[in-house]
Amino acid sequence: MKLLVVGSMAFDAIETPFGKTDKILGGAATYIGIASSVLKTDVSLVSVVGGDFPQEYFDMLKNRHVNVEGVEIICDGKSFFWSGKYHNDLNTRDTLATEVNVLSQFDPKVPGHAQEAEVLLLGNLDPAIQLSVLKKMKKRPQLVILDTMNFWMDTTWETLMKMIAQTDVITINDEEARQLSGEYSLVKAAQKISQMGPKYVIIKKGEHGALLFYEDKVFAIPALLLEDVFDPTGAGDTFAGGFAAHLAKTGDFSFENMKSAVIVGSAMASYTVEKFGTERLQEITKDDLQKRIDEFKQLTTFEVSLNAE
Amino acid sequence: MKLLVVGSMAFDAIETPFGKTDKILGGAATYIGIASSVLKTDVSLVSVVGGDFPQEYFDMLKNRHVNVEGVEIICDGKSFFWSGKYHNDLNTRDTLATEVNVLSQFDPKVPGHAQEAEVLLLGNLDPAIQLSVLKKMKKRPQLVILDTMNFWMDTTWETLMKMIAQTDVITINDEEARQLSGEYSLVKAAQKISQMGPKYVIIKKGEHGALLFYEDKVFAIPALLLEDVFDPTGAGDTFAGGFAAHLAKTGDFSFENMKSAVIVGSAMASYTVEKFGTERLQEITKDDLQKRIDEFKQLTTFEVSLNAE
Repeated sequence: MKLLVVGSMAFDAIETPFGKTDKILGGAATYIGIASSVLKTDVSLVSVVGGDFPQEYFDMLKNRHVNVEGVEIICDGKSFFWSGKYHNDLNTRDTLATEVNVLSQFDPKVPGHAQEAEVLLLGNLDPAIQLSVLKKMKKRPQLVILDTMNFWMDTTWETLMKMIAQTDVITINDEEARQLSGEYSLVKAAQKISQMGPKYVIIKKGEHGALLFYEDKVFAIPALLLEDVFDPTGAGDTFAGGFAAHLAKTGDFSFENMKSAVIVGSAMASYTVEKFGTERLQEITKDDLQKRIDEFKQLTTFEVSLNAE
Repeated sequence: MKLLVVGSMAFDAIETPFGKTDKILGGAATYIGIASSVLKTDVSLVSVVGGDFPQEYFDMLKNRHVNVEGVEIICDGKSFFWSGKYHNDLNTRDTLATEVNVLSQFDPKVPGHAQEAEVLLLGNLDPAIQLSVLKKMKKRPQLVILDTMNFWMDTTWETLMKMIAQTDVITINDEEARQLSGEYSLVKAAQKISQMGPKYVIIKKGEHGALLFYEDKVFAIPALLLEDVFDPTGAGDTFAGGFAAHLAKTGDFSFENMKSAVIVGSAMASYTVEKFGTERLQEITKDDLQKRIDEFKQLTTFEVSLNAE
């Protein structure tokens, strides 16, 4: 199946305890596109960049068979820029600069071929923009995946609720799930969020892994333990990318395959954090990914039968 | 195999957002003893209580075939008492009162039959007392399991180090693992702690599950998601109890069986938190436990093969 991704493409400048970068390639759609290409999923990006966005980034994506026809270039504008500094624990960070630039004028153009995508991944953006993309599709995609954040809960609650009502799978972190639902218990939070629309609720817990809720079922995975997380930037976007790309590639939206997709996304994200930005993600193959998935399996597999005792 | 447990027996008065208790039965050895009896493990407790400790508690333990010959009664003394109030998130609590009472004079008496126990679980106590028990054994137990906490790191570091050097399995929470090792990364923390003595390092992460480290291997389990945790008191002790009881019952100290023991401990603890104190733990059977273990299995099992794509 085809995967259509709407999200930011940007410059990031990152500082971690282990080093710092100048402006490098960033943005949710970028991470998602590269992640999809590792699985050789048919993926198209819809985004907006300024005239300062280097051709080499487009070339890299095209070489990976990521369709970028839907990326608008506003020649006299500047690309979205984010700069941040991670604390020593890598779990928290300070934003040093956010320059929204051309993203403030983002009016997504969905190319004809992409209007028929069966899987739509709406990256973390203004819910009004997310809704507008949904309206531009020839027919409703078979699966709509939504990423969002607390900022939209604080500023555009009603539009966000409309968007969530149209969503099949929502990915959200634990604090945001609590804010969205008003429930501390993540089980109750997931139930309430599911009542807002999404059949599937994925709660990301960072270094503590992720939870997938569907009806009365739950799937929990720990994060892979990486001795040295180098740069957490893009981990959430990579997760969403691996998740959506696996679903589009397999065309199977069952709970069992959603579980697999969560594993694929987590394994993919565990690579992203090993180097700055998208560097590590660009290096890996499907075989690398399978290796890490097998490590996940080892990490979590057990047998217990008390009756033998 | 025989399991010998050294730890507190006490009164607790607990307040949670859902209710409060008067003085009820508490203490690490109590939870561990009851947990062991669910698995019908041959278990003996060594502890100290005051003349105020009700006979009915002893009767309950004896009825469960928990050997309490090693529990000293100081008739003119009072039992250890702890009182605490949990915050709304149930992850944090205020201690309202700690009356150490007879525990301050604790000089463990290990009955003859228990001096030959193959598995020794040293509950969270002054490491000098833990070491003294080890010296009272006829020969070194095949497996020494240690529970400890930050208080002993702050106050008796050198004795604690001696105790840890004699330990095979240490259970500790994430913050304590970081304090003990001086490492933020839990992988590095576990490596450093292992160099202090223990072959196996178990790091408890509360609502985020637990990690088991052995050589270069790791096993990770999420916590079971309980919609309504009612009272977290005793969860860690129950975990240690289920863990040690499974190992003693099976006599198998391989990594694979340590993984099973972690699951048994976690499943057991998931019952404890459903009611106040030991109430729920006293109700469950081995079949109940197996049911919850099967739920753990469902919660964490997945299959992914990218080559099929």
